[in-house]
Amino acid sequence: MMRIVVIGLGLIGGSMALDLKKRVPSEIIGVDVSDAHAETALDKGVIDRIGSIGDVKEADTVIVAVPVNLTAKVVSEVLDLIGENTLVFDVGSVKESICKDLSTHLRRKNFVAAHPIAGTEFSGPDAAIHGLFDEKVNILCETEKSDWKILDKALSLFKLLNMRIKMMHPGEHDRHIAYVSHLSHVSSFMLGKTVLEIERSEEHIFDMAGSGFASTVRLAKSSPATWTPIFMGNKDNLLASLDGFIKNLNEFRAIIEQEDTVELSKIMEDTNYIKKVLSGIQEDAEV
Amino acid sequence: MMRIVVIGLGLIGGSMALDLKKRVPSEIIGVDVSDAHAETALDKGVIDRIGSIGDVKEADTVIVAVPVNLTAKVVSEVLDLIGENTLVFDVGSVKESICKDLSTHLRRKNFVAAHPIAGTEFSGPDAAIHGLFDEKVNILCETEKSDWKILDKALSLFKLLNMRIKMMHPGEHDRHIAYVSHLSHVSSFMLGKTVLEIERSEEHIFDMAGSGFASTVRLAKSSPATWTPIFMGNKDNLLASLDGFIKNLNEFRAIIEQEDTVELSKIMEDTNYIKKVLSGIQEDAEV
Repeated sequence: MMRIVVIGLGLIGGSMALDLKKRVPSEIIGVDVSDAHAETALDKGVIDRIGSIGDVKEADTVIVAVPVNLTAKVVSEVLDLIGENTLVFDVGSVKESICKDLSTHLRRKNFVAAHPIAGTEFSGPDAAIHGLFDEKVNILCETEKSDWKILDKALSLFKLLNMRIKMMHPGEHDRHIAYVSHLSHVSSFMLGKTVLEIERSEEHIFDMAGSGFASTVRLAKSSPATWTPIFMGNKDNLLASLDGFIKNLNEFRAIIEQEDTVELSKIMEDTNYIKKVLSGIQEDAEV
Repeated sequence: MMRIVVIGLGLIGGSMALDLKKRVPSEIIGVDVSDAHAETALDKGVIDRIGSIGDVKEADTVIVAVPVNLTAKVVSEVLDLIGENTLVFDVGSVKESICKDLSTHLRRKNFVAAHPIAGTEFSGPDAAIHGLFDEKVNILCETEKSDWKILDKALSLFKLLNMRIKMMHPGEHDRHIAYVSHLSHVSSFMLGKTVLEIERSEEHIFDMAGSGFASTVRLAKSSPATWTPIFMGNKDNLLASLDGFIKNLNEFRAIIEQEDTVELSKIMEDTNYIKKVLSGIQEDAEV
């Protein structure tokens, strides 16, 4: 019977608890700063009981699934308390600062820095769903700093979650993820904002919104509590990706204004290459 | 037995043919400038036979589903040929210029200007699917210029397609659709372009792309042949919406740079209002 403590019972922590509970004989103990979230998680059967940070002392595995600005602090507290063989891993969308902050901790070897590339636009324990991680990529950073037995335990759990494992340098992770995740969120939020600004002054606009709009604006439903720390935690890379995006928008705007249909068509055709890139990635589209 | 001629056998024309064929006793005659597309439509059972523009003379209904820069010209040719009771309607994503170009045609009363808000990112007769229009909104413009019996025939067909009807001024249509459809396409294309530019110089980035990226970039798979004329046909409104979008992106960028987390969080929270707006809109998300 594995004792697993999940700290942070949101979409990611909650969904992980749901699947681990189903796939491994375990007691899942949930910890959350919000009593209401903890109660919801218990009522929904996401966790077996509500616990406190002290429960990590007796845990086999501790999953830290809190906003990324709190991850290093919480992991550090957990490392101070755990036994010798306890695995601690995080799930944060930012890796460089977390790895750096924890690099000198005396129990660093008990920690595995992870980022499962999985999610929806929803948040909180009510958003927890079964099978969220199946076939998804889980990025691990600085695995050479983890004890091999601890890392192996993590790999076993990730394989129970049916994840594909990819090792990556934390700086490289943050640079890439800015483009393929964080920028998409900014783009959705700003698209939503732009349309809402018009909608407030003009009636009925949303009767005209179709599936394309719903798809591009979906991430604008995401939680500010999750995403403000992520944007701050990956600020420099995000700004670089935003600059590239704004530059492309300005250039495309100029081409539209000049009515250069040949160039307009060529840019779109070149970008259609994204079809190939996306084959294999599923949208977890829920409106 | 209703004789329906569909000119343009792409996603929209093809999908309309499929459902009409199923839901009303009819012969569907397909016309396309591409012989290959016409053959595919016939092989797929989208149409009953391949015809030519001359077939509109004997038609009960003519559906013009060609790129928007050709719509007025094709509709005009069709109106010159048809009988007194023939309904002609278009499906274009741009309405003002089409209505204007056709306003003085002697047979204007046989025409209904329509824009079914439905689609996917795919194109051509292979993209035709059943049920594409069910529960979707169909915007009709300047219906006062259509003969009432012709308009009534159109309403019957649209109801067979299970569509919701909304009347709108063509200028108003174009102004709104720029925000809720055309801007989403530009945003997706430019997001795709920005990420592809990085991907060409850095490896493995797409292993890290998740469902959020797939969703926001989905429309970048759309056909340049469809979208170049739409962007040109709604140039002024699109530029206005793009200016709003770029302005918001620049402001958001500045707020990230200043690390003003309170404002950052507030903007995202305000934009979360999009949740309410989107309830009821389904994504036809296909990767």
